[in-house]
Amino acid sequence: MTTPTPPASRPHGTLKLRRVAIDTYRENVAYMHRECEIYRAEGFQALMKVEVSANGAKTYAVLNVVDDATIVGPDELGLSIDAFGRFGLEAATPVRVAQAEQPRSMDAVRRKIAGERLTQADYRAITLDIVDNRYSKMEMAAFLVSSGQNGLDREEVLALTRAMLESGERLDWHEPLVADKHCIGGIPGNRTSMIIAPIVAAHGMLMPKTSSRAITSPAGTADTMEVLCKVDLTPVELHTIVAAERACIAWGGTARLAPADDILISVERPLGIDSQGQMIASILSKKLAAGSTHLLIDIPVGPSAKVRHMREAVQLRKLFEYIGDRMGLHLEVIITDGCQPVGRGIGPVLEARDVMAVLRNEEAAPADLRQKALRLAGRILEFDPDVRGGYGYAIARDILESGRALGKMEAIMAAQGGQPQSFVAGPLTFETTAQSGGVVTAIDNYIVARIARLAGAPMDKGAGVDLLKKLGERVAPGEALYRVHAEYRSDFEFARAYAQQNSGYTIGESAEAVVSYMDL
Amino acid sequence: MTTPTPPASRPHGTLKLRRVAIDTYRENVAYMHRECEIYRAEGFQALMKVEVSANGAKTYAVLNVVDDATIVGPDELGLSIDAFGRFGLEAATPVRVAQAEQPRSMDAVRRKIAGERLTQADYRAITLDIVDNRYSKMEMAAFLVSSGQNGLDREEVLALTRAMLESGERLDWHEPLVADKHCIGGIPGNRTSMIIAPIVAAHGMLMPKTSSRAITSPAGTADTMEVLCKVDLTPVELHTIVAAERACIAWGGTARLAPADDILISVERPLGIDSQGQMIASILSKKLAAGSTHLLIDIPVGPSAKVRHMREAVQLRKLFEYIGDRMGLHLEVIITDGCQPVGRGIGPVLEARDVMAVLRNEEAAPADLRQKALRLAGRILEFDPDVRGGYGYAIARDILESGRALGKMEAIMAAQGGQPQSFVAGPLTFETTAQSGGVVTAIDNYIVARIARLAGAPMDKGAGVDLLKKLGERVAPGEALYRVHAEYRSDFEFARAYAQQNSGYTIGESAEAVVSYMDL
Repeated sequence: MTTPTPPASRPHGTLKLRRVAIDTYRENVAYMHRECEIYRAEGFQALMKVEVSANGAKTYAVLNVVDDATIVGPDELGLSIDAFGRFGLEAATPVRVAQAEQPRSMDAVRRKIAGERLTQADYRAITLDIVDNRYSKMEMAAFLVSSGQNGLDREEVLALTRAMLESGERLDWHEPLVADKHCIGGIPGNRTSMIIAPIVAAHGMLMPKTSSRAITSPAGTADTMEVLCKVDLTPVELHTIVAAERACIAWGGTARLAPADDILISVERPLGIDSQGQMIASILSKKLAAGSTHLLIDIPVGPSAKVRHMREAVQLRKLFEYIGDRMGLHLEVIITDGCQPVGRGIGPVLEARDVMAVLRNEEAAPADLRQKALRLAGRILEFDPDVRGGYGYAIARDILESGRALGKMEAIMAAQGGQPQSFVAGPLTFETTAQSGGVVTAIDNYIVARIARLAGAPMDKGAGVDLLKKLGERVAPGEALYRVHAEYRSDFEFARAYAQQNSGYTIGESAEAVVSYMDL
Repeated sequence: MTTPTPPASRPHGTLKLRRVAIDTYRENVAYMHRECEIYRAEGFQALMKVEVSANGAKTYAVLNVVDDATIVGPDELGLSIDAFGRFGLEAATPVRVAQAEQPRSMDAVRRKIAGERLTQADYRAITLDIVDNRYSKMEMAAFLVSSGQNGLDREEVLALTRAMLESGERLDWHEPLVADKHCIGGIPGNRTSMIIAPIVAAHGMLMPKTSSRAITSPAGTADTMEVLCKVDLTPVELHTIVAAERACIAWGGTARLAPADDILISVERPLGIDSQGQMIASILSKKLAAGSTHLLIDIPVGPSAKVRHMREAVQLRKLFEYIGDRMGLHLEVIITDGCQPVGRGIGPVLEARDVMAVLRNEEAAPADLRQKALRLAGRILEFDPDVRGGYGYAIARDILESGRALGKMEAIMAAQGGQPQSFVAGPLTFETTAQSGGVVTAIDNYIVARIARLAGAPMDKGAGVDLLKKLGERVAPGEALYRVHAEYRSDFEFARAYAQQNSGYTIGESAEAVVSYMDL
């Protein structure tokens, strides 16, 4: 039997804090040497969660055990780059380490897994624990799956929306009407916001647009706007620009708005799980936190869109309306055509080119992008009590055709530090051609988006796909359907190999085979 | 716009493999320097999963990005300790790194989340991907939650059991009757296996008992047996001992039996989620892989046991019987009293002391532990076709009282390298006393187990709780209810602080208030 001799005295010791130059993304990791006295005494184990505290500050991290004193010594406690930054203390600060209990709100998650309905207090507790970094990735996955699919009823979606909204700061623009729009996503090239915001602001309405970067798509609005100017603005810069221009088009990632949502997304994305309730709570809490009072939601429907059937779109619309009403948000939902990409370019540079072509009223500008942007902008203009119902579209068109939208866009770009420049797509290109002649009867959004990503978008701004044929257009055998741009040889090869296996295009006999989203 | 110049030539390069002395437990982690050309080219991101390959070997790991060349240099690819060991290649071997696709079987997990029934092929694919380390912790959590609670119907439990069994090796003892037992757990001090195995082996039946170490409890059978002898045996040692003695009591962790289960448990445990179906598949696949042909399942029922109601126990019994029958296992279920700990000691040394007292027929030996072990051993003896139904208990008692069980245990201990020794419990002790006089009407299994763990069990073998009073016994005010042993001062203080808040004991007026498990 081994009975270790108890050390002469073992007060709750401290360790010296150290920054370990390892980037573990959103997961806090603590590093402890295997010979560290506290590690041995407490019976810690790798992957356990520990609580690190000093000077009233506290953080939680997953433990990794180190056998190399050059990484952390036995008298040190290492924190991964982000965890160290968020903890905010100097290196060598004495810290205490204890075993972290499982967050208390995991009891609620277990009840949810067991099929119970959770209360507002439960969602509040879960959200706060997530923001405090008390949930491991596994625990977040458990929460997401338990409330996935139809796991949440509408009162729970409301409770989750409130809890997420309360988890962070909330902007107040001190204006009665703050407009915004959001698209459910899944449609490549759908960069309407960059046309709508200038139109709406030119009309005088306030539209401080903060957007995301691409998560699984080849470009988010923030990625595309970044081709033209800076999108990573400080809160002060953002307010100054909006005060001057009535609009901005910025990246929303720096503000601490609904932070629980940002953390959950870092798990939701790699898992690829979808939940209507989670999605609605996520979108609406973000918009409310950003100070929006009026919101237009765009739900594209198509065979390869996120929403594939009209009935699902209508169900989603009702849930949006219900939560919006209960949260005091003026919310409208518009169901749009999601049967193919919008515009021609897919990828930041190619999309920015299309947007600017529409704003400049160029003849070659993609008609569908222009049309959709005007339709949505018209609906937003009708949020203005002074605009007569049904007149929004005409006003939006006037603003666009008169050049006022372009002028507003240029002012916004200048305010965001933009420089005039030309659009340079990736220099490595190949074309995918039609095997046979006929009519384009289907374009798979997912596949063309995947090709654009493989080609390097959104990391490589100039990478992407440029569509040369759209639904209903005639093609001759061997005619090019789209051109792929890449900046790096390996990306180019990946994209080409993928496109050779599946072009994403279906060529049929006649235009009658083209499906309308209204029939889905 | 930033258009990086493509490097002159960028063949799919290789990196030099390096062992990074960081223990990340069961999660494979790969370390790549931020300036590494492949990292930059591929657009990897921290926490992405990468595929590392060389010489036909392949492994999957989660990526951490490093800014410190002393950990990994720009031309190196680091792997965490376990990942490096499992990969099995020499340091400096050139390896290729690519972005890992999400495991294909995650499609099935998503279907399960959506409420679908999965097929045998789905479970096979999931299990194989898990064993290949293709699942991240998050993905495993998603799978566990999706099939948690009543998420699996019985055909699915059968499919999962088969898939887990097939995921690893399978022992064959070349005998028609290989007996085993398993307890659902949750009852501290329940060390019947260490009495049953010697009795059964003394009768001549084969009982190669492999047990687990404590996961969330203060001691597993392997932890307690380790007080007496070695439990970490090689497959060859194990076979030699079983051939000579007809039994062993060893740790089951080294064999690659149902490895998918071991990996899933590493997620299930910290999450604290329970699933009947998962549990049954886990237990039965392990037992079948270990070559058992006859199995006795013990389901203790009690207000603070894992199973709290008779109806739940009966439901579980039926599911066990169904799967057992379909898998060709002769399986019996026995429902036992789980209203309080079994025996007196809780913690490895204290439990080993109780077990040996029973085997030595000492007068002071805990009667309940003796009684329960005889009852279970009797049922196992009745698996022997030559034992008349109902006579098993008497045979077991004869074997115990004659000293043949003790003789067999001593032979097993000697074969497993045990040395005679005395039992030394932790030197730091305190007693929890009754606030008022009366009768012990309830003992909370969970709370006394927690106190034993806080005191240091099972890591510190001598730590634990020694119960001085059990259900139905009279106590005077101030009389001791139990004694806590610890080896370290800090553990001692933790345990004392916790016990002061909640002793785990309820003192009532009369013995009539004691609940029987039969009424639950």
